[in-house]
Amino acid sequence: MSVEQLVADLCQEARQAARALAVAPSGVKDQALLTLADALEANAPAIQEVNAKDLAAGREEGMSAAFLDRLTLSDKVIASMAQGLREVASLPDPVGEVTGMWRRPNGLLVGRQRIPLGVIGFIYESRPNVTVDAAGLCLKSGNAVVLKGGKEAINSNLALAELISQALEANGLPGAAARLIPTTDRAATMALLKQDGLVDVIIPRGGEGLIRFVAENSSIPVLKHYKGVCHLYVDQGADLDMAVEIAVNAKCQRPGVCNALETMLVHADEAESFLPRAAEALMAQGTELRGCQRTLELVGAAVPATEEDWPTEYEDLILSVMVVDSMDQAMDHIARYGSQHTEAIVTRDYERGRRFINGVDSSLVLVNASTRFNDGSELGLGAEIGINTGKLHAFGPMGLTELTTTKFIAYGDGQVRR
Amino acid sequence: MSVEQLVADLCQEARQAARALAVAPSGVKDQALLTLADALEANAPAIQEVNAKDLAAGREEGMSAAFLDRLTLSDKVIASMAQGLREVASLPDPVGEVTGMWRRPNGLLVGRQRIPLGVIGFIYESRPNVTVDAAGLCLKSGNAVVLKGGKEAINSNLALAELISQALEANGLPGAAARLIPTTDRAATMALLKQDGLVDVIIPRGGEGLIRFVAENSSIPVLKHYKGVCHLYVDQGADLDMAVEIAVNAKCQRPGVCNALETMLVHADEAESFLPRAAEALMAQGTELRGCQRTLELVGAAVPATEEDWPTEYEDLILSVMVVDSMDQAMDHIARYGSQHTEAIVTRDYERGRRFINGVDSSLVLVNASTRFNDGSELGLGAEIGINTGKLHAFGPMGLTELTTTKFIAYGDGQVRR
Repeated sequence: MSVEQLVADLCQEARQAARALAVAPSGVKDQALLTLADALEANAPAIQEVNAKDLAAGREEGMSAAFLDRLTLSDKVIASMAQGLREVASLPDPVGEVTGMWRRPNGLLVGRQRIPLGVIGFIYESRPNVTVDAAGLCLKSGNAVVLKGGKEAINSNLALAELISQALEANGLPGAAARLIPTTDRAATMALLKQDGLVDVIIPRGGEGLIRFVAENSSIPVLKHYKGVCHLYVDQGADLDMAVEIAVNAKCQRPGVCNALETMLVHADEAESFLPRAAEALMAQGTELRGCQRTLELVGAAVPATEEDWPTEYEDLILSVMVVDSMDQAMDHIARYGSQHTEAIVTRDYERGRRFINGVDSSLVLVNASTRFNDGSELGLGAEIGINTGKLHAFGPMGLTELTTTKFIAYGDGQVRR
Repeated sequence: MSVEQLVADLCQEARQAARALAVAPSGVKDQALLTLADALEANAPAIQEVNAKDLAAGREEGMSAAFLDRLTLSDKVIASMAQGLREVASLPDPVGEVTGMWRRPNGLLVGRQRIPLGVIGFIYESRPNVTVDAAGLCLKSGNAVVLKGGKEAINSNLALAELISQALEANGLPGAAARLIPTTDRAATMALLKQDGLVDVIIPRGGEGLIRFVAENSSIPVLKHYKGVCHLYVDQGADLDMAVEIAVNAKCQRPGVCNALETMLVHADEAESFLPRAAEALMAQGTELRGCQRTLELVGAAVPATEEDWPTEYEDLILSVMVVDSMDQAMDHIARYGSQHTEAIVTRDYERGRRFINGVDSSLVLVNASTRFNDGSELGLGAEIGINTGKLHAFGPMGLTELTTTKFIAYGDGQVRR
């Protein structure tokens, strides 16, 4: 069978399975999640035996230690997958919620009812635990999922996918509701991206290369983000102790992630007192500073920033710094160079705090808090499947509710249109 | 200047204008809508003089009377555009609404705030009044819009677009927030479809040909529907008087629209008493019936339906009819041949009514009411810009709220992530 046919068949089966999953009772879905959690723990040695094959192949290919670490299904990672599933099981089921209902003048009772999206195509790279995390979120939200993992984790992914289907079937749900494409060919990804009519949405997770490939080739809507060029604006009159603490946290606590700080904009009135202190604290954590001309005058250790720095996501301990004359200049800079991901202001001013919140067009805008909070768990959505920096459907982190949509429902007693 | 550059420039200006529109006070936006309504009425003779050029060209090209009728900006059509704008001005502003707010354990106050989508690319065919209707909805919802109309209405559209920009500027809003692409080249549509980064969503309105062209060529998300193959299921034990009335209304009240009935599914137990009566009432309105074998046995005047009939949107006084043995068979038929647009059941049974509502995957599912109610105004959304039969973002009719999204906002007092 060709790769194209294989993928089309999997998607057709997933579409069929989605109908059953959409009306599955919450208790049954939760029980399947718990069954899977138990199965992961019970089968840990077998999973690790298969995982060892992927690790051996990775070593042979000369993969880095960090890469091999992400690939490893240690006892801790398996325990954390199981724990994650149990947490998802404990979250409320978004499906079936009627988000509003109103009576029309003709007596028709109209409402909106939350329903699953249908079939999700989930495309990801090396970490095999993502197989279980994504399948758990899709199952809980009543969606079927077709999983396409990276070639480095194929053996591990196949073993995990088998356990997922078994857990579904043990609870009377169709195993086809969560299947892994058993080949890691790029042709398989291409085939998945063309299944409009069977797949409702594509969610890619991985590096910018993967995401651009998916976005450019998909004829199905894609929920994605390319990068996070996050800004902190230190306002005139800000609490500078707070600003230092937030800048250090946002930049240094985990510099490789999308909600880490990349550019700091400092009001000119505070630059002289703030920048040397902030620079000292940031450099103490190993951060390289790239500054505008006025920054360079105040921070001797900074190197000059070029035009290329402002739109750059470093994913590293590097921070670009610019002195601005007003909040409007800061907001213009953000509109021009930002990625609509996460921006924060440190301020004591009521009006400017409100104006920053309203005027900045990003998926999360914060006053007096670190950009690092842009995360489904931190914001209180429960688990998240990813972040969307497109405006359509869900802007920002996507939890269970964002894996659903609403349909209109109407109860009548014979109404016809006049 | 090339068409591509022209379109790119318009989109760039629209993106800039969108920032101003996103924070424009409701009163200012409403006043601009009212200014435009007055201007349309005051300039009716001038508009009609320009419209006469389009009509003359249409006559020369041998366009049908129905086509010329749709193209005509009569006094009545101008009054109705103005009235529509006044109604939109009177609707609540969706922008700025905080749809929820909650406190995290660390004291961070997190919420979701409704914001415009940004820049909308709106692509439509012949009716020039759509220029005003679409611009009004986009303005009210805080979005900039780039309009691309059909070549048959270009002179009328240019005149209307000029009045729109004047009304914006008269109220201190940027005229670039609503501009018509001044050429009707297909290259202009292609160029608009490639402005990712500047345009957030494309909404096409027109025939299936236009919509498929847009969907296949856009690198920007598209909200669209191809067709409405709507079903009515007449359940075992249904009120047959009601079923006849609903069937006739759904099929015959306006057969050319997307929420008109195309297929009727009748439970076998009711077929003998229902079908001859229903056929008589439908045929009295000029409806042709195409039936399955069992239908043909009960309705002499019906012609045989072929496999091609079941997925067909006739947009005409034709109805396909099938006798089924159970509601499950009806639901399977809908899942296979339907277009996820609108389906209705006529029933007296509590459990089956609920099961139909939950199990049918369409943008509107009705119990004991006509499919013709799938319309923004009829469902109580106020005006609508279109219907989306994709699951992403908004499933079904899209009103003002569906032209917005939400961003996360967070108020802190120095929170950092641990």
